[in-house]
Amino acid sequence: MEEREHAVGKNVKRVDAFEKVTGRAKYTDDLCDKSAYVAKILHSTVAHGIVKSVDTAEAEKIPGVVKVVTCFDVPKYYFPTAGHPWSTEPAHQDVSDRLLLQEHVRFYGDDVAAVVAENEVAAAQAVRAIKVEYEELPFVLDVQKAMEDGAPQIHEEFPNNILKHTSIRNGNYEEARKEPGLIKVEGWYDTPTVQHCHIENFICYSYMEQGRMVVVSSTQIPHICRRVVGQALGIPWGKVRVIKPYIGGGFGNKQDILYEPLCAYLSTVVGGRLVKLDVSREETFVSNRVRHAIRTHIISYVRPDGSFAARKIECFSDQGAYASHGHSIAAKGMGAFPQLYPCPNVEGDAYTVFTNKSVAGAMRGYGIPQAMFAVESHTDDVAKAVGMSPFEFRWKYLMPKGFTDGFSKNVNYFDTFHQCMEKGKAYIDYDRKMKEYADQTGEIRKGIGVAAFWYNTGVWPISLETSACRMVLNQDGSIQVQVGETEIGQGADTAFAQMAAETVGIPVDMVHVVTNQDTDVTPFGTGAYASRQTYMAGFSINQTAALLKNRILEAAQELTRHTKESLDVVNGNIIRRGDGEVLMSLADLALEKLYSLTNNGHLTAESSYQAKTNAYSFGCTFAEVEVDIPACRATLTNIVNVHDAGQLINPSLALAQVHGGMSMGIGYGLSERLIFDERTGKPLNNNLLDYKLSTFMDHPHLEGQFVENYEPTSAYGTKALGEPPVCSVAPAIRNAVLMATGVAVDEIPLTPHILFKRFKEEGLV
Amino acid sequence: MEEREHAVGKNVKRVDAFEKVTGRAKYTDDLCDKSAYVAKILHSTVAHGIVKSVDTAEAEKIPGVVKVVTCFDVPKYYFPTAGHPWSTEPAHQDVSDRLLLQEHVRFYGDDVAAVVAENEVAAAQAVRAIKVEYEELPFVLDVQKAMEDGAPQIHEEFPNNILKHTSIRNGNYEEARKEPGLIKVEGWYDTPTVQHCHIENFICYSYMEQGRMVVVSSTQIPHICRRVVGQALGIPWGKVRVIKPYIGGGFGNKQDILYEPLCAYLSTVVGGRLVKLDVSREETFVSNRVRHAIRTHIISYVRPDGSFAARKIECFSDQGAYASHGHSIAAKGMGAFPQLYPCPNVEGDAYTVFTNKSVAGAMRGYGIPQAMFAVESHTDDVAKAVGMSPFEFRWKYLMPKGFTDGFSKNVNYFDTFHQCMEKGKAYIDYDRKMKEYADQTGEIRKGIGVAAFWYNTGVWPISLETSACRMVLNQDGSIQVQVGETEIGQGADTAFAQMAAETVGIPVDMVHVVTNQDTDVTPFGTGAYASRQTYMAGFSINQTAALLKNRILEAAQELTRHTKESLDVVNGNIIRRGDGEVLMSLADLALEKLYSLTNNGHLTAESSYQAKTNAYSFGCTFAEVEVDIPACRATLTNIVNVHDAGQLINPSLALAQVHGGMSMGIGYGLSERLIFDERTGKPLNNNLLDYKLSTFMDHPHLEGQFVENYEPTSAYGTKALGEPPVCSVAPAIRNAVLMATGVAVDEIPLTPHILFKRFKEEGLV
Repeated sequence: MEEREHAVGKNVKRVDAFEKVTGRAKYTDDLCDKSAYVAKILHSTVAHGIVKSVDTAEAEKIPGVVKVVTCFDVPKYYFPTAGHPWSTEPAHQDVSDRLLLQEHVRFYGDDVAAVVAENEVAAAQAVRAIKVEYEELPFVLDVQKAMEDGAPQIHEEFPNNILKHTSIRNGNYEEARKEPGLIKVEGWYDTPTVQHCHIENFICYSYMEQGRMVVVSSTQIPHICRRVVGQALGIPWGKVRVIKPYIGGGFGNKQDILYEPLCAYLSTVVGGRLVKLDVSREETFVSNRVRHAIRTHIISYVRPDGSFAARKIECFSDQGAYASHGHSIAAKGMGAFPQLYPCPNVEGDAYTVFTNKSVAGAMRGYGIPQAMFAVESHTDDVAKAVGMSPFEFRWKYLMPKGFTDGFSKNVNYFDTFHQCMEKGKAYIDYDRKMKEYADQTGEIRKGIGVAAFWYNTGVWPISLETSACRMVLNQDGSIQVQVGETEIGQGADTAFAQMAAETVGIPVDMVHVVTNQDTDVTPFGTGAYASRQTYMAGFSINQTAALLKNRILEAAQELTRHTKESLDVVNGNIIRRGDGEVLMSLADLALEKLYSLTNNGHLTAESSYQAKTNAYSFGCTFAEVEVDIPACRATLTNIVNVHDAGQLINPSLALAQVHGGMSMGIGYGLSERLIFDERTGKPLNNNLLDYKLSTFMDHPHLEGQFVENYEPTSAYGTKALGEPPVCSVAPAIRNAVLMATGVAVDEIPLTPHILFKRFKEEGLV
Repeated sequence: MEEREHAVGKNVKRVDAFEKVTGRAKYTDDLCDKSAYVAKILHSTVAHGIVKSVDTAEAEKIPGVVKVVTCFDVPKYYFPTAGHPWSTEPAHQDVSDRLLLQEHVRFYGDDVAAVVAENEVAAAQAVRAIKVEYEELPFVLDVQKAMEDGAPQIHEEFPNNILKHTSIRNGNYEEARKEPGLIKVEGWYDTPTVQHCHIENFICYSYMEQGRMVVVSSTQIPHICRRVVGQALGIPWGKVRVIKPYIGGGFGNKQDILYEPLCAYLSTVVGGRLVKLDVSREETFVSNRVRHAIRTHIISYVRPDGSFAARKIECFSDQGAYASHGHSIAAKGMGAFPQLYPCPNVEGDAYTVFTNKSVAGAMRGYGIPQAMFAVESHTDDVAKAVGMSPFEFRWKYLMPKGFTDGFSKNVNYFDTFHQCMEKGKAYIDYDRKMKEYADQTGEIRKGIGVAAFWYNTGVWPISLETSACRMVLNQDGSIQVQVGETEIGQGADTAFAQMAAETVGIPVDMVHVVTNQDTDVTPFGTGAYASRQTYMAGFSINQTAALLKNRILEAAQELTRHTKESLDVVNGNIIRRGDGEVLMSLADLALEKLYSLTNNGHLTAESSYQAKTNAYSFGCTFAEVEVDIPACRATLTNIVNVHDAGQLINPSLALAQVHGGMSMGIGYGLSERLIFDERTGKPLNNNLLDYKLSTFMDHPHLEGQFVENYEPTSAYGTKALGEPPVCSVAPAIRNAVLMATGVAVDEIPLTPHILFKRFKEEGLV
């Protein structure tokens, strides 16, 4: 009798561990042939202007320079860059406002010209030798100033620079706030422009093969990349092939199409030759994508017991110069507002506004870190106003079990928030410390803060959710698994292997996940974003594994002369369900079937699954800080994140995700901000020396804990975990500083500069 | 009304033409990372012996040498090398007589030790620095001497060095030859050892990834290679991944597993690092594979009208030192004998015999060029004996229409031989020239010769015949096609594209054939051999295209609200069958279906097809020569091949195949022979200077013509063409020399050396 060994819910080693640890894993640059031409881009040195002329004469004289192209040369196919599934309805398509190079430059760092050279030195020299004459235009950097009448117009089609405005109207805010006895709590909350800072900068290379464009790119979204390259070059999408090797992180920056279309175009102007475009860290900071800085205004009318009578939210999202993911980020951020603390009367307005700054796109959390900073900072302000402890307030008013969202159909199936809060509270020793830190007066004061969040899984019903999978049975009973969802460092391939093993009925090490997506052969999938990998790929893996297993059992019926229905695959063997007897190994079955002279067959399976579900992920952060008041310095001393991401496929990989997200959240709360010069729009700290990325040296122990409620809508009980860990960290830190000092600092990061300003305002220094 | 444009039967441009012509096509060496370690092999310098010791001390001291392994180090997993489909029945498996390196060396050039070094120079120096001590053993080079009692024993398990002996017994030869009035015609016919001389020498590289062996190889048979590497290394086959890039010809040499297992093993001894093994032309000649030299003895008892009463054939096939494809080549060669000129009483014996020479394996024609040289030379001898013209004899006695082979079920459906003979005769102006050349007496004499052949398509019913295919629909209505059958320079990918386009209903340029096989994702197929590509892949392409079309029409029903049955796909459009009205383009359908929010689907199809059919290909050669008797030189002045390969998918590619085969046949008949030193067994002309490969300079115009009888068993009416063009060239040349001089030269190549010997024997010089 064979005991079934489960493959999910286990700490199996990452499938790519050896390659990653030994440095053997091949990334884009490792794969690029050394014969490649090198491309470099000339970026705008004005924040807003019209290119009057580009003089390439000197550049073209530099030995090794093959071709110089300018904004006047490129085809005029406007294309969108957001890593969203395509929609055949124009109204749902992303804004197409990009060209390969721009005559109308809209930010310091915009793309004006490009050089293709035989080597990097020649390319760099040539970029410096190009002379550009601009007609400078007035520019605007502040999101609300950009909305004013008379502000510089960045895109003609968008008056007042408003890319989009959406509203929420639940109940009647204006009437409800007239209820007598209400306490009004109001705040403005500011989040900064930050950058993803993945280890591997964006890189791609391109060449022509059999009349088609091949693009190898460090992208999270190969199938989407294929479509956008087609759009940008004005060629049929099937004429584009995109390959995604291992990639060194993306965090959403690579969920945008960055320079793949330009690189492909540059290949076409040199006869289809191999061209590599490897951007620097400085370019990554400025000319890729950044996180939207969002300014949020919240007004809450609260009853003395803390219950909300009416609430209002306004979000001003700084889009930077081009649409990219556009309004969807502000919309998602604002969309989290009515649900976290349900209130019958809510008024919301979100504005996504162009400014003459770096383009904002997707970044881990996709609007939720900004929203949660505002909402959960405000929650502490509300709790304080009604005299409740932050914990008590949340315990009472956070989204209750059974709460259902009418639009997404998401249900809070369990008492998750209480479970998470209790775990976090116990770990951080909340009650004791709240008492201990209650009335501090010295220069060094300690504080403890809490914040919660919820997060969606995937993009349904906003956009298409689909995943496809193919499995191939080998002669030894092992299988290959291909999916369009991408390993981007997060461990997705390992989770895919575990899920496939679970359903087929084989050990995990018998599953070989094809890690590199190649749009020519990889089943269609939209890629890594929206924390969708495990949840969405899980559907097609589950469905395809069941199809493969069915084919295996059909062959088993033929070979064992037992009915298919009486058989099962357990631990890589064909067993009889009745008594668990092993009838043959899957390896023997595969071999016999493949080489059968009477009824040969190569057992494979493929299917695509359209998901029409979504799921709430939940969690909270408890943070403890020590504030040096004279130094205006807040130091994080203790932190715990508690998550309900459903059943964990691989607890240790899940924990690694949590650690990474917490680190990013700590930087968001305490140190990271991309600064633009007010007079010129020039980014001032676009490098890892001046930009204070959170590192291991800045962290206390990062404690991650889980509440594992099996998600009923999910093929394997799992749901979003990739982005959630970053969502509630910054407000927990802000709330801890509030508790320590009594000062509400509503602008992150909580750097000494900002603390000094606030402490001074409040008379502490 | 949409007129259907056909994709087969047309001269479309090769899909890889641009890449091949511009040199951009990536071959194995182009793809290998420059960081690769370099491996080189130390070969035996004795024809037969036991390695007593290997001193690697000096070799290991050479800077850059990483590892030296000897025959004493390698694992003792005996493995077969033939590119045959595996059989789960041990009796049908190929002989496993190879180890990665050999302690018992069996030919000059056998593999004794190998070096892995950081660079080529160090590897070459180290190979030279290794000292080997042999116990030399007696050796034997002649196939019949090897069968004698007391001959040196090459493999213990095979007494008298006979790898295998098979017999044919039809009717009663001994009784039948007693019929009064019969004329006995007897001959011995000798064919030489030749080598394939593909442009790209064998090369492979190997490394470990995720605990698996990856082998990139210039092979015709990636899926078989995977199996043999697994066998040789003693690891499960699913732990091996084989990738086949573009390859520069194979002609059967690369239908053997050559050094892939050794290369993979060498990677394992350096921790899985990338190791490249790039063999030289000299090694390719000696230590890869050669064509079996076969000595054939034929006795025919003929009635005065030319009809055969009884026939006997004996084949002695020189296997060289290891089994490789073994007896199957001699068996196939002898198998062609009873059918070309059906005779009720036939006795046949074929012996495949080990000798201490280079290993014989598959080569274009697989035994048939040897058999046809014997049979068709003998046919002229018979015709002469009964006073018929060679043409008249063949016209009367060649396999008639309706002839059916009991074993393969092959049927000669058409009057093909007469059609082919007539075309060839007309082109060469046979009757006029036969008269003109009838009674020559000068030093320069002209002659004209003819020879015919038949050839199977694929290996059923001897072995498994299966092919599998996958198709993926893109958003622009184009498709990718993956098959396990391999492009090896012959143009297979173009034929695959045409067949897929034909059945799906789209233009050929909308089909993208994935040219590189990767056993992880490419559907199972056994590869390029037995002239099976178009015929066998055609089945699965046809079947899979029909499946894809069905899915397309299902989607069309959904999108057009017409029933599936009333719709068709024509020229890339969905049309209504009734009136031919175009309802939507396939591109629109693909786009709508993929991005549908109500019923999304990625349309793909995959299937495997087990072929239980085979087909006769036919043809003939007419050759005209000028013989300079004092110089003992025969010059080919005119030649035509006529083929019935069924319907041609692409006539100009078919003609290119014919040209290549004719060139190979001309070398076979006139100049090529690998010579071994009698005293040492050392090959004497293993380079392209001393080995007289037939080149463009040696050819007259090569005329290829076709008779296109649609093959009823075939998915697209096509059948074998890859190998047939080489089969009847040499005997046609020999027969032309016979006609010119009256001298039957029964040993090829017809070099001056051999002509001198025969002319002297016959008193001409």
